Amino acid sequence: MSTKVPIVENVLKLNDEMAIQNQRLFQQTGVFVVDLIGAPGAGKTALLELTLRQLKGVLDIGVIVGDPATCRDGDRLAKHSEHIVQVNTGSGCHLDANQIRHAMNKLKLADLDLLIIENVGNLICPVSFNLGQNCKVGMFSVSEGDDKAAKHPNLVVSADALILNKIDLLPYIPFDLECFRQDVAHLNRTAPLLEISVARNQAKAWLDWLTENAKRPEHLTKSN
Amino acid sequence: MSTKVPIVENVLKLNDEMAIQNQRLFQQTGVFVVDLIGAPGAGKTALLELTLRQLKGVLDIGVIVGDPATCRDGDRLAKHSEHIVQVNTGSGCHLDANQIRHAMNKLKLADLDLLIIENVGNLICPVSFNLGQNCKVGMFSVSEGDDKAAKHPNLVVSADALILNKIDLLPYIPFDLECFRQDVAHLNRTAPLLEISVARNQAKAWLDWLTENAKRPEHLTKSN
Repeated sequence: MSTKVPIVENVLKLNDEMAIQNQRLFQQTGVFVVDLIGAPGAGKTALLELTLRQLKGVLDIGVIVGDPATCRDGDRLAKHSEHIVQVNTGSGCHLDANQIRHAMNKLKLADLDLLIIENVGNLICPVSFNLGQNCKVGMFSVSEGDDKAAKHPNLVVSADALILNKIDLLPYIPFDLECFRQDVAHLNRTAPLLEISVARNQAKAWLDWLTENAKRPEHLTKSN
Repeated sequence: MSTKVPIVENVLKLNDEMAIQNQRLFQQTGVFVVDLIGAPGAGKTALLELTLRQLKGVLDIGVIVGDPATCRDGDRLAKHSEHIVQVNTGSGCHLDANQIRHAMNKLKLADLDLLIIENVGNLICPVSFNLGQNCKVGMFSVSEGDDKAAKHPNLVVSADALILNKIDLLPYIPFDLECFRQDVAHLNRTAPLLEISVARNQAKAWLDWLTENAKRPEHLTKSN
């Protein structure tokens, strides 16, 4: 296994080169791109359904959605937008810049204000792969437990915003909210922590953050 | 990115060779080894705390626990057993056979009946890496949503048993239990689906399955 680290570095270097090309294409068409990263079941697709519904008429939004298998997420989102592309990664645990290149070619980028990439449900590998996005959003949920920010520091440190979903479950699950907030603040002092409940349709903090940044992307400086 | 597939195959080949050596060492010492794979927050560590408590005096159990960062899980488990080794994988999204080799060298295998490897919270990559285990257990939870078995067919197909945890949350979360059961049965007709609630201390199906197989490992034929 001694060859593993250089191999990984090589894959990441190739990926970075392609991500820079993606970034140029995104800039040329004026679309703001968010890479949304969270565990399986954090509620990413449900959040995007809500987002597409609530921001209809405010922003023209496309989604590239990654999953190991099935088109279930793509089908769910296609009810709310015609700008949806599903990528199946098979045994791949993340989206890479090459997959995004192929997917973005299926979208009319010039028609979009905002493109959200729903990454494969995984808190680890997607963090290492630049896709050419403007910003990275890390998504956790109450049902995963209050230790998940501390256990996934690479995601928290690199994120421009962090979401804590399923706060409606706080009465039913042991979750130390103050401890979670402190772990996040300890790792990342600038990213806002957006506490929401998609199930209860309470996601104003996220919608406000998204709308403001999509309209004024120069305020974000971290990703890329 | 065209070099990616052969690189992955090479890494897996090296891993498989080391896994076979691990397997021989496990067989020589007569320890039964379970690779437990689930998403972040599925409740793997809580299940192992319960298991160590409930099977005290029945089986001598060791745990190798993988996480990207922190020793929180290892510290939790060390309250219940002296045979605990924590592996921090950093940006690594799975445990590999080499990490298991180093970890098992820190354990007195001859003193153990059962070794459980709590893999890194991830439903994808850990499935591809043989560690030398006797069997593989896939763990889902109600809060992740009822589509997760269908979305992670590689895990379901390769598992010797499947766990559905957090059934106490069924009243509070939209989850079609019959649909989940059908997805599992469609992919894997032989693995039992063990429906449990660690939070309610209801895990008899898991404890019975584990005890029976640890004592009669010849009944399992799938892994390795």
